[in-house]
Amino acid sequence: MPLVQITMLTGRTADQKRKLAQRITDAMIEEAGARREAVVVAFHEVASESYASGGVLMADKGK
Amino acid sequence: MPLVQITMLTGRTADQKRKLAQRITDAMIEEAGARREAVVVAFHEVASESYASGGVLMADKGK
Amino acid sequence: MPLVQITMLTGRTADQKRKLAQRITDAMIEEAGARREAVVVAFHEVASESYASGGVLMADKGK
Amino acid sequence: MPLVQITMLTGRTADQKRKLAQRITDAMIEEAGARREAVVVAFHEVASESYASGGVLMADKGK
Amino acid sequence: MPLVQITMLTGRTADQKRKLAQRITDAMIEEAGARREAVVVAFHEVASESYASGGVLMADKGK
Amino acid sequence: MPLVQITMLTGRTADQKRKLAQRITDAMIEEAGARREAVVVAFHEVASESYASGGVLMADKGK
Repeated sequence: MPLVQITMLTGRTADQKRKLAQRITDAMIEEAGARREAVVVAFHEVASESYASGGVLMADKGK
Repeated sequence: MPLVQITMLTGRTADQKRKLAQRITDAMIEEAGARREAVVVAFHEVASESYASGGVLMADKGK
Repeated sequence: MPLVQITMLTGRTADQKRKLAQRITDAMIEEAGARREAVVVAFHEVASESYASGGVLMADKGK
Repeated sequence: MPLVQITMLTGRTADQKRKLAQRITDAMIEEAGARREAVVVAFHEVASESYASGGVLMADKGK
Repeated sequence: MPLVQITMLTGRTADQKRKLAQRITDAMIEEAGARREAVVVAFHEVASESYASGGVLMADKGK
Repeated sequence: MPLVQITMLTGRTADQKRKLAQRITDAMIEEAGARREAVVVAFHEVASESYASGGVLMADKGK
């Protein structure tokens, strides 16, 4: 019953998320023995002003 | 100090969330001995293109 | 496909978690229209030195 | 590689999140020995009807 | 800066987690344009009495 | 009612977590206007074989 939760910046297309869900689900089945129907993938998308690395908001990087 | 975080598809009304928060909080108090004021419930709602089961986006199911 | 993730202190019995899972799942079905088999509940249990409210570790309260 | 995920009500400004990210990252470095570039902070902001304490939605408090 | 958090039952070997981390990271890079060094994968493993689907603990299934 | 959840490698002492909880709670109060008693901090600690960056488990780094 693996739950895969992905936090990433907004801006990916539905097709990108479609392919990510497929590949991650396949990996959970093939490497961890999960049943296909039990794998859930959820994308939590955050704005660039809500995400920081190294203490700097993504919105401020490259400025 | 239980934290209850619920990831679900968007589309539930405020009243549905109100009743869920009440019932889940009551369950935490009655079954787990939590203090009422210490129970927090947060709903993280995701679009149907950001949620997949079995490797298929909810947005693609039933197509 | 609601995912319910509960963070709480260690120390609850399997029977307490059993009843919590039942009641929370019933609430998701009855109040939010979820399908039973799609509701997942996971308990993340943390030690009293890994949990703080008001800036004070649970392990330090009541001292 | 600490990941800091903050769930809070919507309504904070970018500048508030900027300062939170700075201070929390500094704390992770100075108190826990994290490398600066390895600290990630993400803000998950939820509406007042998606957040409850004591079984009552924030949207209903003070009514 | 994608964060991938996986909640699953305990019992997978280090090698299974190694391969999952590799494949999921590759998927994030190839499908979502992530930079390799920015992808973090964390496994949160829970006991079978701390995980339920359909309102039934994994520990109780098959009994 | 901010919830701060920190995923990091095991190995920090109670005193390190004590100081992190204090400083992060102070930051939430001073920068985001949170009430002290409403700030919750939880540490989710994972083993080095359950944490990867760049697709490589922490347990494998430096080998």
